[in-house]
Amino acid sequence: MAAEVFFLAKRPVGIPTTDCFESRVENLGAPGPGEALVEIRYISIDPALRPRMNAESAYAGALELGEPIPSAALGIVLECDDPDFPKGTAVFGRFGWRTRVLAPTSSLRKIAPERAPFPKWLSVLGLSSFTAWYGITRIARPVKGETLVVTGAAGATGSMAGQIGRILGAKVVGIAGGDEKCRRMVEDFRFDGCVNYRTPDFQRHLSEACPDGVDVAFENVGGDIMKSVFERMREDGRMVICGLISEYNGEFNPGPNFWPFVYKSLRVEGFRASKHWALVPQFIEEALGWYDEGKLDQPEFITRGFSNAPQAFIDMLSGKNIGKSMVEVG
Amino acid sequence: MAAEVFFLAKRPVGIPTTDCFESRVENLGAPGPGEALVEIRYISIDPALRPRMNAESAYAGALELGEPIPSAALGIVLECDDPDFPKGTAVFGRFGWRTRVLAPTSSLRKIAPERAPFPKWLSVLGLSSFTAWYGITRIARPVKGETLVVTGAAGATGSMAGQIGRILGAKVVGIAGGDEKCRRMVEDFRFDGCVNYRTPDFQRHLSEACPDGVDVAFENVGGDIMKSVFERMREDGRMVICGLISEYNGEFNPGPNFWPFVYKSLRVEGFRASKHWALVPQFIEEALGWYDEGKLDQPEFITRGFSNAPQAFIDMLSGKNIGKSMVEVG
Repeated sequence: MAAEVFFLAKRPVGIPTTDCFESRVENLGAPGPGEALVEIRYISIDPALRPRMNAESAYAGALELGEPIPSAALGIVLECDDPDFPKGTAVFGRFGWRTRVLAPTSSLRKIAPERAPFPKWLSVLGLSSFTAWYGITRIARPVKGETLVVTGAAGATGSMAGQIGRILGAKVVGIAGGDEKCRRMVEDFRFDGCVNYRTPDFQRHLSEACPDGVDVAFENVGGDIMKSVFERMREDGRMVICGLISEYNGEFNPGPNFWPFVYKSLRVEGFRASKHWALVPQFIEEALGWYDEGKLDQPEFITRGFSNAPQAFIDMLSGKNIGKSMVEVG
Repeated sequence: MAAEVFFLAKRPVGIPTTDCFESRVENLGAPGPGEALVEIRYISIDPALRPRMNAESAYAGALELGEPIPSAALGIVLECDDPDFPKGTAVFGRFGWRTRVLAPTSSLRKIAPERAPFPKWLSVLGLSSFTAWYGITRIARPVKGETLVVTGAAGATGSMAGQIGRILGAKVVGIAGGDEKCRRMVEDFRFDGCVNYRTPDFQRHLSEACPDGVDVAFENVGGDIMKSVFERMREDGRMVICGLISEYNGEFNPGPNFWPFVYKSLRVEGFRASKHWALVPQFIEEALGWYDEGKLDQPEFITRGFSNAPQAFIDMLSGKNIGKSMVEVG
């Protein structure tokens, strides 16, 4: 059985180009004991890949040239001797950008397509959503009546952070790049407001959307947008940072000065969701409950065709997506 | 009964000069019901005064020109009709830089000179020590074996933060300005190490003192010193900031970029001790216990003579003190 696999062909400068990725065909043998042959259906497309494409990355380790592109993905078991994973079992795993994989069953997590449609297991119930859930419910903890500002609001993580904040009772204001993104977040995803940063009046609009300032910020953009939020933080404010997409292409922004940390009792806490995977089952139970009640959802931005994975990634880094980017392989 | 009172005469630019302060004589009447006439014995000299001397201060409100200089102080009740505060009672209060005061007894807190000598109630048992205790035991929480770096290590707050960290089991490395300060912190106050930042080899010495990096930082200096510590923070590090003395004269330092917050799961949390005064009694019990056991102490840097209060303040901002600055009035 053969698999097509994307690997890192060239390191990007700035926004990646499609020639940074090339694919090759691998021949997979038959699955050994405790192994499953999985046909991949959906591949998650994530910003966190970008820093790992640099020659040095403190984030999760730099990829070598020629190394397969890692990512979360969903698939169907084709063949497996483990009775827990019979043919047809729907599974989640860190398969990477590939069409098929041989994987130890210990690395598979069953999903339940009868409880939520297939792509939802990468979007509402996926790891970027988990990241939002952890940051909001475990670190930022907005309470009823507080103002929560979410940057990257139309992205996979931001769109969930805003909805979960609203479930907890916060007034949620998003920041996104474009009027259409903002409209969707308010009309379809229950944000109280959403401000387009790509207008000359951004600062005024943000102030109008947050007349009392910002109690909690869920930050994953950085740069001038982060600075605009930071300047509006109220006393006892909490800013949680799980990523800085504006810096992924290699330019680091100077941070704000730290004096407001003191006089406003601000906390800034960065985190990597990967350190908290043990909470994923608890997250999925909570998120499924909210999803079933119609309180939590996410648009999927699905690119069809395995060969388009590089372009899907580039489109996401360029902000073309609303919601969770993924590639449908079949 | 007359009192001499210092007031803000001129706003400083940079390090204050003595002509920023002038004193005047106030006539105090006899104490009314529920009031005490207090003879002041010791005045606390604190860096936090400096930002309040600017025309605008987000920290604790700018002082008006002509406004009395605020500070904590210790005194003896001379006259009072409240049987709880008979003549001779030793008290703590926010009396300001003055020789006598009429104060409501509700604003007084009794101290116990028989349990610790008078100046200890401004040093080991005072508010700058409380600040260290709160930051270390409530926010930074170093655990056994972790490396705690304390900036401003020879100052009133830093010297306590280091000792309390050591009580909790941390390896404590101070940063201070001068070899003599560093020697004192190690020899007299149980720091495991102390690095003089006023040498060309500071960076190398800091790396040698913290070969495994920094788990917890107690920061009250800012600028290049803070940056040096921040760059050495380990994963899951915690940096607590309770002041930024290098910025008090009006120059703000650019902060570090925020990317390490994410990949090291760093938390930065500023705080104002004034929001936690309700914990002072608990703090005093704990600190007295440690003091009695010989685990906690602080040198007092005592300037004699009320009229020298401005110079004492200037000396402290210039880093001349080791330990807690105060003025002995009598």
